[in-house]
Amino acid sequence: MKNEKLATLLKEYEDFQKLNLNIDITRGKPEKRQLDLSNELLDMVNSHSNFTDKNGTDVRNYGEAYGIEEIKNLIADIIKVNKDNIVVCGNSSLNIMFDLISRSYTHGIDGGTPWSKLEKVKWLCSVPGYDRQFSISEYFSMEMINIPMDENGPDMDMVEEYVKDPAVKGIWCIPIYSNPTGITYSDEVVRRFARLKPASKDFRVFWDLAYYVHHLYSDRRDHLLNLLDECHKNNNDDLPLMFFSMSKISFAGGGVASVIASDNNIRIIKNALKYQTIGYDKINQLRHALFFKNAENVEKHMQKHAEIVKEKFEIVIKALEEIEDIAWFTRPNGGYFISLFVKEGTADKVIARCKKCGVVLTEAGSSYPYHKDPHNSHIRIAPTFVNNEKLKVALEVLKLSVRIEYLLSEK
Amino acid sequence: MKNEKLATLLKEYEDFQKLNLNIDITRGKPEKRQLDLSNELLDMVNSHSNFTDKNGTDVRNYGEAYGIEEIKNLIADIIKVNKDNIVVCGNSSLNIMFDLISRSYTHGIDGGTPWSKLEKVKWLCSVPGYDRQFSISEYFSMEMINIPMDENGPDMDMVEEYVKDPAVKGIWCIPIYSNPTGITYSDEVVRRFARLKPASKDFRVFWDLAYYVHHLYSDRRDHLLNLLDECHKNNNDDLPLMFFSMSKISFAGGGVASVIASDNNIRIIKNALKYQTIGYDKINQLRHALFFKNAENVEKHMQKHAEIVKEKFEIVIKALEEIEDIAWFTRPNGGYFISLFVKEGTADKVIARCKKCGVVLTEAGSSYPYHKDPHNSHIRIAPTFVNNEKLKVALEVLKLSVRIEYLLSEK
Repeated sequence: MKNEKLATLLKEYEDFQKLNLNIDITRGKPEKRQLDLSNELLDMVNSHSNFTDKNGTDVRNYGEAYGIEEIKNLIADIIKVNKDNIVVCGNSSLNIMFDLISRSYTHGIDGGTPWSKLEKVKWLCSVPGYDRQFSISEYFSMEMINIPMDENGPDMDMVEEYVKDPAVKGIWCIPIYSNPTGITYSDEVVRRFARLKPASKDFRVFWDLAYYVHHLYSDRRDHLLNLLDECHKNNNDDLPLMFFSMSKISFAGGGVASVIASDNNIRIIKNALKYQTIGYDKINQLRHALFFKNAENVEKHMQKHAEIVKEKFEIVIKALEEIEDIAWFTRPNGGYFISLFVKEGTADKVIARCKKCGVVLTEAGSSYPYHKDPHNSHIRIAPTFVNNEKLKVALEVLKLSVRIEYLLSEK
Repeated sequence: MKNEKLATLLKEYEDFQKLNLNIDITRGKPEKRQLDLSNELLDMVNSHSNFTDKNGTDVRNYGEAYGIEEIKNLIADIIKVNKDNIVVCGNSSLNIMFDLISRSYTHGIDGGTPWSKLEKVKWLCSVPGYDRQFSISEYFSMEMINIPMDENGPDMDMVEEYVKDPAVKGIWCIPIYSNPTGITYSDEVVRRFARLKPASKDFRVFWDLAYYVHHLYSDRRDHLLNLLDECHKNNNDDLPLMFFSMSKISFAGGGVASVIASDNNIRIIKNALKYQTIGYDKINQLRHALFFKNAENVEKHMQKHAEIVKEKFEIVIKALEEIEDIAWFTRPNGGYFISLFVKEGTADKVIARCKKCGVVLTEAGSSYPYHKDPHNSHIRIAPTFVNNEKLKVALEVLKLSVRIEYLLSEK
């Protein structure tokens, strides 16, 4: 009976192989229709524009190295923070995070010992999490410590315990519509973060608001507490470094990225930046400020993204529901990813099987430090880039592969 | 007689003070007419554009992290190098240099010891030179060593001697229309650079082509040998890191910056960049590629800049000729700066006197490591940003201040 079922599935799989598929759902990239939503942003600054910002600086010239007023006001309106607590940089928030860590290694934080002089730096990693952040930790040879997440966020008992170790210097968090599970940290989790008293003065919570405005449904949307406010209530202002990128609001890689932090952290960041650059591209900052104007418009714009992304999420969820007997998956209210958890020990085999059939998923283990999924169970699905038809086919192959590997593992 | 003359000059100075001047000629910033030359660049990518680059990548999305083909081809055409030896980054070449040095501290170069683990890192600084480069060295606590320059470039006897010390890891050079003297390295100097055999495998020549196409006169233009080619002839390919920024071609801070280097250096750079960022703003790269198209158009564009900058240079030179009896100055064929050398021991006093009269010059000593001009004689003049009328007035105040301080120093 089981063998018969396996044979049928393998036959189906072979049929898909004959299609010579080539479908890539590895990365969280927007699709063309999403990019088209912001095309008019490109017309906002043209040869006939007024190039002078609110402070009288010509955005085509040097100056305003920490961001023009207009873009700081927009971000302040979106995140609900004081504009003086924002530094606006170039196009990449990952680059801002990298730089902050790199500077901690070369110069320490605020007079502290440079991390390069320490015997060991440890870093907490909410898992599953964002591979590019873990890569930064790996690049700097940090010892990464897995902090498992549930539907409320990271295991805060573990976090509270680990921060007693002065070698622990930070934690990676994507607190709303997390990459890759799509969960949002509960108010209680955020409050426990805000109350942390780490042994190391250097400890920082890297709070990446990559999907802050990326709600999918108007009737079901997650809400995240403002960590900076919560920390302030606990006299813990310097704990968080918040990051906000517009890459998945306007153009991927063509947006505007920023860091949001306490007065003291902003002072430290500005002091370092003045050695690093003469300033960032203010013309692109002005384009974004003129196109979006305020938080309300960003909200409306994100609803248009949601209409497109939602279709993809629904295709994925509908397909995965058919294998709920042998796997479970997340049903996020926003963001870019859905996490599928298959039978322990089979995730790498499922991903390899999909690949042999021309369907490329994010590599097994990518969402974990050192690329090691302790349960070999997690599969990240990034459905946004491909069109709906291709996505449906990819999901057929994925479902089939999950079933086949499940049966093979039982032999 | 001398006292009489001084009294007359001081009277004249007082008259200028009454004007309540506020003229800033501290930085090498383009003026509005120069920025206007590139306004149409902003129309090159608009809501109706084709967003696909030569490799089929949508420039509005992630991908092509090391620069799109189009912009690499343009830069290859300008600098006359192979496009595969170019990595195109964001808007700031200073930022690329900073990052290269920072990574040498955290990770070393190509398997070498991270500089943070070394007892001392020494760096050669061609003087007078670019303050922002010296600031990077200072930020990393390097021991900076002055290498005096004459009209042919840095003193190569000294360079050849110093590189025998394995602690010496690099040199700052702006080899054509140097900041701040405007001189260009002679062929012999470039060839001696290319033949250098430093004791440290990590030693790199930081070759900043900031003013590579910034000729002022069609009949008098400096020529710089291609250091990468010259190094190749000497089997010394990995020695130079060349930097090319378009900030002073299109928009200051809104241009496109790149690093040009050997295959091996490019491999090292790409390997590090993949941790640091997902990629740079490709839309701005495409804008630049479409607007300039090829080296010939850049050349024509730079002639328009020259028409404007030339006026300023001629105002400065005409004014300074009147004090040639007590000072000397450079007469560059290109670039953004003129260097004035006043009587030893008086530069700081001249600059302070100008400031008290509302004319702000780059701070005394800025063009030297640790802000220490050993002769207290150098004044950097950055004439481009202000309009011609203001510049003329500034020069009157400067001349007067030079004369007054000269006389006072003789007392």
